[in-house]
Formats: sequence, C-alpha cells, structure tokens
Amino acid sequence: MAEGFSLEGWLAAQKARVEALLANRLERLRAQTPPRLFEAMGYSLLDGGKRLRPVLCLAFAEAVSGQTGGGGAVAEDAACALEYVHTYSLVHDDLPAMDDDALRRGRPTNHKVYGEALAILAGDALLTEAFALAAGGSEPVRAALVLELARGAGAAGMVGGQVLDIAEDRPAALDYLTRLHRLKTGALIRAACRMGAVAGGGGARELEIADRYGDAVGLAFQIADDVLDVTATAAELGKPTGADAAAGRFTYPAVVGLERARQLAQEEISRALSAVKPLEPGDGPLAALARYAVERTV
Amino acid sequence: MAEGFSLEGWLAAQKARVEALLANRLERLRAQTPPRLFEAMGYSLLDGGKRLRPVLCLAFAEAVSGQTGGGGAVAEDAACALEYVHTYSLVHDDLPAMDDDALRRGRPTNHKVYGEALAILAGDALLTEAFALAAGGSEPVRAALVLELARGAGAAGMVGGQVLDIAEDRPAALDYLTRLHRLKTGALIRAACRMGAVAGGGGARELEIADRYGDAVGLAFQIADDVLDVTATAAELGKPTGADAAAGRFTYPAVVGLERARQLAQEEISRALSAVKPLEPGDGPLAALARYAVERTV
Repeated sequence: MAEGFSLEGWLAAQKARVEALLANRLERLRAQTPPRLFEAMGYSLLDGGKRLRPVLCLAFAEAVSGQTGGGGAVAEDAACALEYVHTYSLVHDDLPAMDDDALRRGRPTNHKVYGEALAILAGDALLTEAFALAAGGSEPVRAALVLELARGAGAAGMVGGQVLDIAEDRPAALDYLTRLHRLKTGALIRAACRMGAVAGGGGARELEIADRYGDAVGLAFQIADDVLDVTATAAELGKPTGADAAAGRFTYPAVVGLERARQLAQEEISRALSAVKPLEPGDGPLAALARYAVERTV
Repeated sequence: MAEGFSLEGWLAAQKARVEALLANRLERLRAQTPPRLFEAMGYSLLDGGKRLRPVLCLAFAEAVSGQTGGGGAVAEDAACALEYVHTYSLVHDDLPAMDDDALRRGRPTNHKVYGEALAILAGDALLTEAFALAAGGSEPVRAALVLELARGAGAAGMVGGQVLDIAEDRPAALDYLTRLHRLKTGALIRAACRMGAVAGGGGARELEIADRYGDAVGLAFQIADDVLDVTATAAELGKPTGADAAAGRFTYPAVVGLERARQLAQEEISRALSAVKPLEPGDGPLAALARYAVERTV
C-alpha cells in the first residue's frame, strides 16, 4: 500500500461492497424461508451499520494474499457470516429481558416491529445461517472458518462476554471490564481478522498478527463506543446521549473517567499499529481502520 | 444386523453412550466459560432426554460404514452437535415470549431457574458451540456436516417451522400442519440421519436413504408427540396431560382427530421402513427406531 492512504473513499467503497454482498447472500434464503421470518432477518441485517467486522475480514484477506479481492468468495462468505452473527447478537441484546432497547441506529428495534417471539427466532436464524455461509463451499479452509467464527461468538467469546455483562455481582474494576469487553466485543472482531487471514491463505504467522491486531482494535472500538455514549449527539448515536450511562451500564468512562478512557483507547491503537506493521509496512487500510476505530464520531 | 434385533437393550446402551459423550464434550468448555453460563447450558443439556437425534446419527454412521462405532469421533461430534441444537431450541421455545412453559421433562424450565436473559444466552451458546463441535477436526467431511446441521436448524428448517407455528393466521389444515412439522421437528431429525450417513462415509445413495427415512421418522415422531399429549399420563409426560391442547396449540389430533393421527403416524413408519430396507435388510436398529418413534409411551 502506498503512503498517504486515504481511508474515507476506501471505506465507502468497502461498505458498499459489503452491503451488496449481504443483500446477495440473504436473497438466496428468500425462496425457502417463511416470508415474515425473511423480513425480520433483513430488517436488522440490512440497516446500514458500520460493517466493521466484514470490512476487517476482507481487508485482512487482501493484506495477507497481497491481492485486491484476495480470498475471493471464501472471504466474502466469511465477511457476511460475521455480520450475520453481529446482527443476531444485537437483536437478542435489545430484547426486553436483556437491554430492553426501543431504538437501534435511529429505528425501532426488531422486537418492537416484529414482536419478541419473532425477534428471538430471527436472531436464531441469523446465527444458524452464518454457519451455513461459512461452511458453504468445497474449499478446504471452510471448517477452519466455522471454528474461528464459533470460538469468537461462543461461550468462551461473545456470549461469554454478554453473560459477564449481565452478572449482578460484577466488580466495578478495570480488569473485569477489560475481560468482559475482550469477550463481548473483542472476540468477534478478533475472529473477523483471523477469518480474513485464513481466507487469504495465511499461516501461523499471519494468524498471530491478525490475533494481536484484532484484540487491540476490538478493545479500542469498545472503549470508543463507551466514550461516544457520553460525548456524541443523539442524532449521531441514533439514541439519546448518555443512554448507556443513564441505564447504569458498566462503561469505561464510568469506571476510569473520560480522559483515562480516551488514553486507554489510544494505547490499544498503538498496539494494533505495531502488530500490523510487518504485514502492512506503509500506511494502508489496516492501520487506517485501527485509527478509525477510535476517531469515528458514530 | 441379525433377525430378531431387540431395541430395548440396544437403546439403553446407545443412550448411555450419548450421555457420556455429551458430558465429555460439554466439560471441554468449562475452563473458558463463565461458571453461571456453563451451569445453565448443562442444566438443559444433561437432563436425560430421549437423545433420539444423536442415536439416529450414530446408528446411521454404523449402518453406512458397516462397523460398530462407525464414523468414530466425527460421528460422535455430529451426534453431540445435534443434541446441542435440539436443546437450544427447547430452551428458547420455553421462553415467556414463545410457549411460556414452566416445566420441561418434569423440571423447571431453564428461564425459571436462571432467568430469561441467561436462558436466551445459554441457548445462543449451545447453538454456537454445536457448530464448533461439528467443525472441530481435520477430517474433510467437517464442512459438509456443518452445512447439513445449519440447513436442518436454519431458516428453511427448524427455525422456519417455529415461525410457521407462531403465525397468527395459520390455517387449521393438514397440509399446513405437515409442512410446519416437516420443518419444525422433521428437518433436524432428517439432518441427524444425513449427518450420520456423511460421518459413516456414505455417498449420494446413502444420503438419499437417510433423507427419506429421516423425513418419515420425523413426521411420525411429531404426530406421536401430539397423540401422547392427549393420551399419556402427566407422570409420563413430565407436564399435565393435554397441556398442548389446552394451550390451543396446533396438533394432529386437533386437526384430524386422534384415530386418523395414529393412522398417519403408521403410514410414515411404513415409508421409513421401506426407505431403509436396502441399507438394513434384516430387522436392525434403524427399523426398530422407526417403530419406537410412534410406539413409545413418552
């Protein structure tokens, strides 16, 4: 990658690519899916999120393979599978029994539109179909992709983090918060980087780089999310400013203060940049994405 | 298999084998799973169900491979993955927003013990870890197993059937009921047979047999379930007799009457026996399992 890489145009192109891929992969399910279920899945999947996980996956596949579009359909399936899993986790997270959120990205949450039962099932279907996507080809790396995805999303990953987040006896301590987010947000972001490296044909060295970079970017991203909750406008957030803080949620600013939280995010970005240097000596997309994780305004 | 095969002893041995496998596979997750999540997963997974899906999977692997223990660890992982998926579906199905059941197999349902949030997450974790199990080895058939499992469990399978089951405008007609159950119960039972055939080294012919047998046994099993709801004792059911009928659920006896429902179940068993004949010329476990699907008392 050339020096002076500019993130903005590249990111817009990547997001457009991911939107098209997601619409394409979902469409394949239409004929055999009950219409109401199909609609509920699409409502949350195709709502224009940041698509950070698919973009990271595709970027790693390109960086590791050294080719534009590197990893081909394997990387594209993996990218979509990651967004399916991320979307299901948001749908279930918003349920009355969980965070009980009425708005997500400025729109009513899934259960507000389709009812709780269908929201639970739409989440279940997105999670299941994610694995069909990851496994859906004859390439030998397919099973490895499934395993990475399941580890990132499962009991020792994202779901484990969600359980730590709802624990009543959680200590208001930085090390617990960090462990929680390393699982709740970090594990799937790390999986995105690792799956991209696998799809791009990487070996142990590239997986190690993806792992270290993903761990740092995942933490930085979550810290930035917590900071934005108290600093961004309601229009930027798609929900009231300080909603998480008001709900008594367990956030970095609440535990260590706003300034220290910003500092911690910057430290993680430095870790990410140093991890990815061997793979991307110039100032390329992976370095830019790491900075974007904390410099974004939404 | 020799003529005069007796199901009872064989089934008890198979169930014991499955119980040991499930405990073993779950135990591998303990070290890295938050303790409360691990406990909630085990509460529903290790509660002594019939284990029909894992038993079918292992039986097909043996029949197709022609060897006792055929399919080895691949078949065993597949068998456990199927029970993980079945268990998650029960945990989510029992939730207040779904069937709102307080009892399952004579014990309080998962959310009654652990609360709704943890029950949702325990279900999510079981579903995710099912795919980690199916994909967790270097054998080339692993991705195919994941795909079979996802198709059986997903939007065009089990979850699709659950959505048809909660539809408010469902017609009280036999063809809708059959389509519903072909998805809700049948798809995962068919997947169990197909995964066993794959694990046992089967090709297109064996998959076709597994598919036809699984479809028939799945329907028969569900019809028998609906019949038992109104004919078995509360002690046998682990919940009051007629609970489904009283809850206004959409059952075979409600739609076609008790006698016709019993007849339909027998017709499916005949289909299953004829499908499996080429694979099991004598009176072996697969034929006995097909009969057991309707002749059981619980």
